[in-house]
Amino acid sequence: MSIITLTSDMGIKDFYLASIKGSIYKALPDAKIVDISHHIMPFDIAQAAFIVKNTYPDFPENTIHIISVDPEPSLNSNHIVIFKSGQYFIGNDNGMFSLLFDEVPDQIWKLTPPENIGSSTFPSKSIFVWAASLLAKGAKLEEIGERIDKIRMRVAFRPVVEEELIKGTVIFIDGYGNVMTNIDKTLFDKVRDNRDFTIFFRGESYGINKICKSYNEVPPGEKLAIFGAGNFLEIAINKGVEGSGGGANKLFGIKLNDIIRVEFK
Amino acid sequence: MSIITLTSDMGIKDFYLASIKGSIYKALPDAKIVDISHHIMPFDIAQAAFIVKNTYPDFPENTIHIISVDPEPSLNSNHIVIFKSGQYFIGNDNGMFSLLFDEVPDQIWKLTPPENIGSSTFPSKSIFVWAASLLAKGAKLEEIGERIDKIRMRVAFRPVVEEELIKGTVIFIDGYGNVMTNIDKTLFDKVRDNRDFTIFFRGESYGINKICKSYNEVPPGEKLAIFGAGNFLEIAINKGVEGSGGGANKLFGIKLNDIIRVEFK
Amino acid sequence: MSIITLTSDMGIKDFYLASIKGSIYKALPDAKIVDISHHIMPFDIAQAAFIVKNTYPDFPENTIHIISVDPEPSLNSNHIVIFKSGQYFIGNDNGMFSLLFDEVPDQIWKLTPPENIGSSTFPSKSIFVWAASLLAKGAKLEEIGERIDKIRMRVAFRPVVEEELIKGTVIFIDGYGNVMTNIDKTLFDKVRDNRDFTIFFRGESYGINKICKSYNEVPPGEKLAIFGAGNFLEIAINKGVEGSGGGANKLFGIKLNDIIRVEFK
Repeated sequence: MSIITLTSDMGIKDFYLASIKGSIYKALPDAKIVDISHHIMPFDIAQAAFIVKNTYPDFPENTIHIISVDPEPSLNSNHIVIFKSGQYFIGNDNGMFSLLFDEVPDQIWKLTPPENIGSSTFPSKSIFVWAASLLAKGAKLEEIGERIDKIRMRVAFRPVVEEELIKGTVIFIDGYGNVMTNIDKTLFDKVRDNRDFTIFFRGESYGINKICKSYNEVPPGEKLAIFGAGNFLEIAINKGVEGSGGGANKLFGIKLNDIIRVEFK
Repeated sequence: MSIITLTSDMGIKDFYLASIKGSIYKALPDAKIVDISHHIMPFDIAQAAFIVKNTYPDFPENTIHIISVDPEPSLNSNHIVIFKSGQYFIGNDNGMFSLLFDEVPDQIWKLTPPENIGSSTFPSKSIFVWAASLLAKGAKLEEIGERIDKIRMRVAFRPVVEEELIKGTVIFIDGYGNVMTNIDKTLFDKVRDNRDFTIFFRGESYGINKICKSYNEVPPGEKLAIFGAGNFLEIAINKGVEGSGGGANKLFGIKLNDIIRVEFK
Repeated sequence: MSIITLTSDMGIKDFYLASIKGSIYKALPDAKIVDISHHIMPFDIAQAAFIVKNTYPDFPENTIHIISVDPEPSLNSNHIVIFKSGQYFIGNDNGMFSLLFDEVPDQIWKLTPPENIGSSTFPSKSIFVWAASLLAKGAKLEEIGERIDKIRMRVAFRPVVEEELIKGTVIFIDGYGNVMTNIDKTLFDKVRDNRDFTIFFRGESYGINKICKSYNEVPPGEKLAIFGAGNFLEIAINKGVEGSGGGANKLFGIKLNDIIRVEFK
């Protein structure tokens, strides 16, 4: 029996999430449901893609991911399922999938639910649950959709790379106030090529010229750079908490989409 | 094995919820527990009733719902279980059940737990878990309670209906800022009788004279009326988010218990 | 199959928690995972200890508790597992375990994970999941660690007891605003010895000279003292909610670490 994960911007206060779970159990009494996050910023497909991108490699094969952020189909977005890396991803083709995967996936299927499937205002409950339940029961992709060859593309912010510079962007700030950039370890190591470097943020006000392997390589309250859980370059404060200046975001005043520069010499 | 759902005002930060779950697993190692919501406003039985009312139809038969909002019994409230629509509802008879169901249920049972069942300060953990675990194991209602024929009534705000008018009330605002009224689709269609209409809110400042089938029938940032997931008349903003005015509640300054008027002609 | 519980300061918005859950399911497809709380204040091991202390007695034998608060090992802290009261407790030996248990446990094992176990920045996902999965599959403690005889001690605030006085401290404030002290029922009853008493808080501004058995022994909005779910002396307001003064913490201006005095005569 496959795991079904749920990622959404629904929050956990309203009745929407429980309605989806009830519907899954109705179709599939033995379902195993795992919440990824329901606190994606409303309609923020970039954040949804980031969260799922950093989570799905930890899940077992055949896991089915329902991603319900901006789920209403439109003239130029269809409900689709993608099969990639041994796992299934169900959602609205609103651009999110192009941010989730680094390349256009091979196996893209447009969902073809039965006509009377129910609520048009709540496709996550009707259509996504229908698709996920059938897949979990072992249905083949051709039984729930028809193959297509494109997903809707949305331009991701990618780091700008020069001979002696990487210019990245802050793409996520976690609950500890750790600041994550879009500069991943592979890119960093390649451009660095064993040279010395300084990571600048807030213009040139702050600089770090070392990468730590763990947060407590520096004393509590001290800043550090690290490749964190998602393997992205991250600016952090070791044990930065409220009352002692907070996390890196508050202490340095760093916001989403701010520029982070790495200079090599 | 039945599903046991949990609805409460306990939040998810403290140890109460986990204590309940542990107690269920202790009694019932194979339990399937589903959280409905634990963010009901403290002691707000109307909100609890609304959330459960909009959720339980999505759950399979024999689901057991524990509703822990204002759970302490008093001189005029007993712990009861109601069997309705093939599902069980356990809670304190504090008026909530009269708001949850549109008519007095047929099968009402006063719980008769053993005397030494434990904590009087935490009946949700002791008494409700006792009842739910036995029901999940297949106990009959007469084994856990004695039949009674009344529940405590609490007056619900119902829409006022006239020849050319429905006057409803805002009963819930969801996490997107969508504003839900107590006017359901059946009532609306009956009174409307194919006539034109205008939905007024904030006095006569705003009006909508069309019902959408999906949120994105209007452009992002535009207001709409829709019968949402719960089939109640809802005022919404398509993709209304912080930074662009927010949801309908913030943009129009609509609050719980505000009046919404529908005029027909 | 054992239950695996998770307690952390990770929150539920980021991808960390889901990564841990996915990793558990990958190692153990039939895992039963229960969230205790993920809203421990960042790095607050005292709060983590308090939450787990009040929860674990409700869980069945062989439950495995992963506690991920300040999980990075350091020069003077190891990753350990403790077997106590028939249950397993996995975490970083940063002082938390000395606050969780009233005495030094007998069975303490230093974890000895394989060298290439993965992320040094995220030991909760790599090392704790490794240990928990093996224990859940039935591994013996000697297969995952080597026995040691000490845990790191951290001084807990304990009540000061005199002939006619107990001076306690506020150690937790729950979501209802109920104020919990470190004075437990056993200590209180022993010192009281059937004498009259007054519980003072905020200096001598407020006093209570009675212990209630349930919150609604007093009218809504009235203050009371009670031994709550965790069996600690608690100051509460019956049905204290926002808009009518709030819970005891807000109404009386009581904060964490404030002194609560009980005088006997």
